[in-house]
Amino acid sequence: MDVGLIGLGKMGTGIAKSLLRAGHRVTVYNRTRERAEALRKDGAAVASSVAEACRSDAVLTMLADDSALEAVVFGEGGILKALPRGGMHVSLSTISVALSDRLAAEHARAGQEFVAAPVFGRPEAAEAGKLAIVAGGPKAAVERCKPMWDAMGQKLLMIGEQQSKANVVKLTGNFLIATVLESLGEALAFARKSGVDGAALMEFLTSTLFNAPVYKTYGALIVEGKHDNVGFALPLGLKDVRLVQQAADAQRVPMPIASVLHDRFVTAMARGHERSDWSVIGQIAAEDAGLARAKSA
Amino acid sequence: MDVGLIGLGKMGTGIAKSLLRAGHRVTVYNRTRERAEALRKDGAAVASSVAEACRSDAVLTMLADDSALEAVVFGEGGILKALPRGGMHVSLSTISVALSDRLAAEHARAGQEFVAAPVFGRPEAAEAGKLAIVAGGPKAAVERCKPMWDAMGQKLLMIGEQQSKANVVKLTGNFLIATVLESLGEALAFARKSGVDGAALMEFLTSTLFNAPVYKTYGALIVEGKHDNVGFALPLGLKDVRLVQQAADAQRVPMPIASVLHDRFVTAMARGHERSDWSVIGQIAAEDAGLARAKSA
Amino acid sequence: MDVGLIGLGKMGTGIAKSLLRAGHRVTVYNRTRERAEALRKDGAAVASSVAEACRSDAVLTMLADDSALEAVVFGEGGILKALPRGGMHVSLSTISVALSDRLAAEHARAGQEFVAAPVFGRPEAAEAGKLAIVAGGPKAAVERCKPMWDAMGQKLLMIGEQQSKANVVKLTGNFLIATVLESLGEALAFARKSGVDGAALMEFLTSTLFNAPVYKTYGALIVEGKHDNVGFALPLGLKDVRLVQQAADAQRVPMPIASVLHDRFVTAMARGHERSDWSVIGQIAAEDAGLARAKSA
Amino acid sequence: MDVGLIGLGKMGTGIAKSLLRAGHRVTVYNRTRERAEALRKDGAAVASSVAEACRSDAVLTMLADDSALEAVVFGEGGILKALPRGGMHVSLSTISVALSDRLAAEHARAGQEFVAAPVFGRPEAAEAGKLAIVAGGPKAAVERCKPMWDAMGQKLLMIGEQQSKANVVKLTGNFLIATVLESLGEALAFARKSGVDGAALMEFLTSTLFNAPVYKTYGALIVEGKHDNVGFALPLGLKDVRLVQQAADAQRVPMPIASVLHDRFVTAMARGHERSDWSVIGQIAAEDAGLARAKSA
Repeated sequence: MDVGLIGLGKMGTGIAKSLLRAGHRVTVYNRTRERAEALRKDGAAVASSVAEACRSDAVLTMLADDSALEAVVFGEGGILKALPRGGMHVSLSTISVALSDRLAAEHARAGQEFVAAPVFGRPEAAEAGKLAIVAGGPKAAVERCKPMWDAMGQKLLMIGEQQSKANVVKLTGNFLIATVLESLGEALAFARKSGVDGAALMEFLTSTLFNAPVYKTYGALIVEGKHDNVGFALPLGLKDVRLVQQAADAQRVPMPIASVLHDRFVTAMARGHERSDWSVIGQIAAEDAGLARAKSA
Repeated sequence: MDVGLIGLGKMGTGIAKSLLRAGHRVTVYNRTRERAEALRKDGAAVASSVAEACRSDAVLTMLADDSALEAVVFGEGGILKALPRGGMHVSLSTISVALSDRLAAEHARAGQEFVAAPVFGRPEAAEAGKLAIVAGGPKAAVERCKPMWDAMGQKLLMIGEQQSKANVVKLTGNFLIATVLESLGEALAFARKSGVDGAALMEFLTSTLFNAPVYKTYGALIVEGKHDNVGFALPLGLKDVRLVQQAADAQRVPMPIASVLHDRFVTAMARGHERSDWSVIGQIAAEDAGLARAKSA
Repeated sequence: MDVGLIGLGKMGTGIAKSLLRAGHRVTVYNRTRERAEALRKDGAAVASSVAEACRSDAVLTMLADDSALEAVVFGEGGILKALPRGGMHVSLSTISVALSDRLAAEHARAGQEFVAAPVFGRPEAAEAGKLAIVAGGPKAAVERCKPMWDAMGQKLLMIGEQQSKANVVKLTGNFLIATVLESLGEALAFARKSGVDGAALMEFLTSTLFNAPVYKTYGALIVEGKHDNVGFALPLGLKDVRLVQQAADAQRVPMPIASVLHDRFVTAMARGHERSDWSVIGQIAAEDAGLARAKSA
Repeated sequence: MDVGLIGLGKMGTGIAKSLLRAGHRVTVYNRTRERAEALRKDGAAVASSVAEACRSDAVLTMLADDSALEAVVFGEGGILKALPRGGMHVSLSTISVALSDRLAAEHARAGQEFVAAPVFGRPEAAEAGKLAIVAGGPKAAVERCKPMWDAMGQKLLMIGEQQSKANVVKLTGNFLIATVLESLGEALAFARKSGVDGAALMEFLTSTLFNAPVYKTYGALIVEGKHDNVGFALPLGLKDVRLVQQAADAQRVPMPIASVLHDRFVTAMARGHERSDWSVIGQIAAEDAGLARAKSA
């Protein structure tokens, strides 16, 4: 396919590489041009404007938050104006349910197609084409993107016509991961203060009931106190917890664990961890219990 | 080995069968004798008293809570008196860290050996010999029980000389499972009220990041609203949350998610779910959100 | 003084009457004109537009939330355009800290004065001129309004030049009141289930340590289960909790009780209490404990 | 009256002085005898044993916790044995509902009377005879103590025949006070980080809606960061929160604010505040928000 890709953070860059490796033509755009230029060696074309990236079968956006995406879509020279009737916008970002609903409405009004396709996976998975993707939108549009999904990920969930359902799934997933971080943090603080070796505990748990990637990966990071290698930054984690809370509030669903998570993320920010990986919230219980951080970081 | 086994609830009965199947001689005792008699057909001998079950290489106890175990150990005709010097008591129950420490001290004073070996797994796993076991106690004693561990389980963690560390691990594990129940309950309530199909959501999550037995098993139960098949009863779940909180309090570790869980279990009890499986706490968020239970139950 | 007053809900209407009674000339405006007309008998002039209400020494706004105030200020024919240079806008509403900061900036840019003066008190207090007022803004401007403060309230706190500090105080106060509601709800549910008479308990507590209006008023409402007389509606309470959380989040202050309150308000909304007074959150603990509501409502 | 008084901490000593000042004959006993001797100058007789203090119209106990009271009542040479049939035990301590029920049963079995009469007030109030007292027990017994209540306090609530209801009221009151501490801590952390002066805020709030001793006293302590003058020690506060939680759990009443309080008290203990007044929990929110303590302490 011939695709535009706007937003070249770690995730966007990884996705660009996966698409290029699979043979797609990719025109990339980033506000700071250096990151775009760096992809030329992988075969990418570099656009000088958002509009230029919109002259493709589909324009993909992978941006940090609602306001970044709003600027790129609704701002001057933005996607809404630049995309032709019949054009397609695929939003890969983790954004609010409300913005997703608004994008669906505005693109429909402009005769454009809109697909919400947030992804699960850390930057290495993006670059390896091993993301898990949740796509919401008109069936035909989602299916037309199949070559793209194949290049980006190893698992696709088509969640239905209403785009924002995909965002709900993404937020739900991030809520569950953040819960794992916090619960491991509490469990390990309790175990450590009781004299139990954290590494032995995690080895046991992840080879039995909790034999899942998320427990293995994050359990090790929390036991070792390693949160400097930022796969997903703490402020983004806080942003996602807020998005879950706002969407759940709008649907009138009380989520007490989400409330605990919010307080934890805010505490971690106040304690100066904002440049760490979001897994650092797994250290807050230890700090509250008067324990020193495991090792590094 | 020649073992006594006291306490024939679902878990104890399953363990007895596994031990018998593996060729061990098992003398069983239960307060209501019927359950003991029922095991004769599997080859068990039936003891008429706690003392009779103590004339073996080791006496195993699998009881509901601290007070049941205290009665059997410290009560008249109890294990502490009946067990000879050099005898061994292996406690499989999920008990408090404090009681485990007390048992270690009292058995040592009586010249007896004590091993704490709580197990993970539902009754079917006990019967299939597929438990995961955490053993705490003197190395020689734990190793002498090896034929027994082999018959009971497929995974063994030897956590060290201090018996109660095994209980800490068990409580930690149950805390993490209960967290999964509650977080799935919140996630599914949010998803459902947002129009997302719960079964599709769980299928996606458990085939990607949350590819672990505990998410698969309990996710399905919560989506389907099936909590009548009681593998682990709600009041026992509440008991374990209390034990985590008490032990963490004693170590001065604040655990906010444990606090949320406590409130949820109490709410579930107050709402009349006490005869349900503990997975029913995964319905409380839905109830709070004004949703009707999925299907059955 | 010669004042315009926009927004004639229960609070705005009460304030209008207090101002008129004290001899001020008041020109009122409300989107649904009936409420404005009803004040003619008290001596008010009725404006046909926002702009008309801006031809005074000061225009006061008393609106339900941020978006209502934004519409009236920034919308077409709004205060920002209608108010002359040197004119004054006094915002009495409970709004976000962020909007207060924005209003300060925009009015300054337009050469207009802005005072944030949120008030404490139920509608009866507004009508009786017995509000407590927190005023933030340039000292001269706040002092020029003195005749107005005298008419409206019995207590004034001048909190400083930065207008939004007044909003912080207001949100802080509402947070503390909501905490009282929830804590009384929990305490009374516990007492009732323990066989203790709620009325006797409240009489004792409010004649000793908790001898304050907020405990007396709300304690009685919760004991009697009377939440139909809506002084402050549940959805407004939820709105204020959200505003506290957003402002605290922006300042990186984790507030776990605010999180509990948020979950309670959302639960109360989901359970169909949205037309009740916000004191209804004092019934949620009782509901969770399986108790029937005291009497009425 | 002729009374024995066992337990001469700050509260017990203050009560002894109030009783002596009112003309009662008081025989005091304390494990470390010095404190008893110190009261001779106020007119007290000093007992050498618990039994000696039981030869009076009533023996009063004012001890730190359940286990201290259990030792004095059920231990060798304890009250249960020493008190004659028809004798009366008045428990002033803040103890568990469960222990109160047990004392009622055991004293009844021994033909003795039991009154639970926990008190509200800091040590200065005890010495000044200005406590608030909640008495539970047989009406005749409670009324016979009237001269004593008059000497000790300025407010009496007779809550009914079942003694433990008095303990429920006491725990409820302490729960509400602890809630005030925590909510003020959160509110002041938020206000301070927003640039609002804490002292001005408290002056305003406590002269309007929160015009109650508990807000005035504790608000000032938290604003000034003064927690060294220990009226009620942090570990006792934690003990009382646990007692509330246990009693509420037994009645199946979920209390989410009590859960927050528990986590706060444990955190405060882990952070080394255990020798401070319990009002120090009002500093935890500030610590979590990255603020330095106000001034002293």
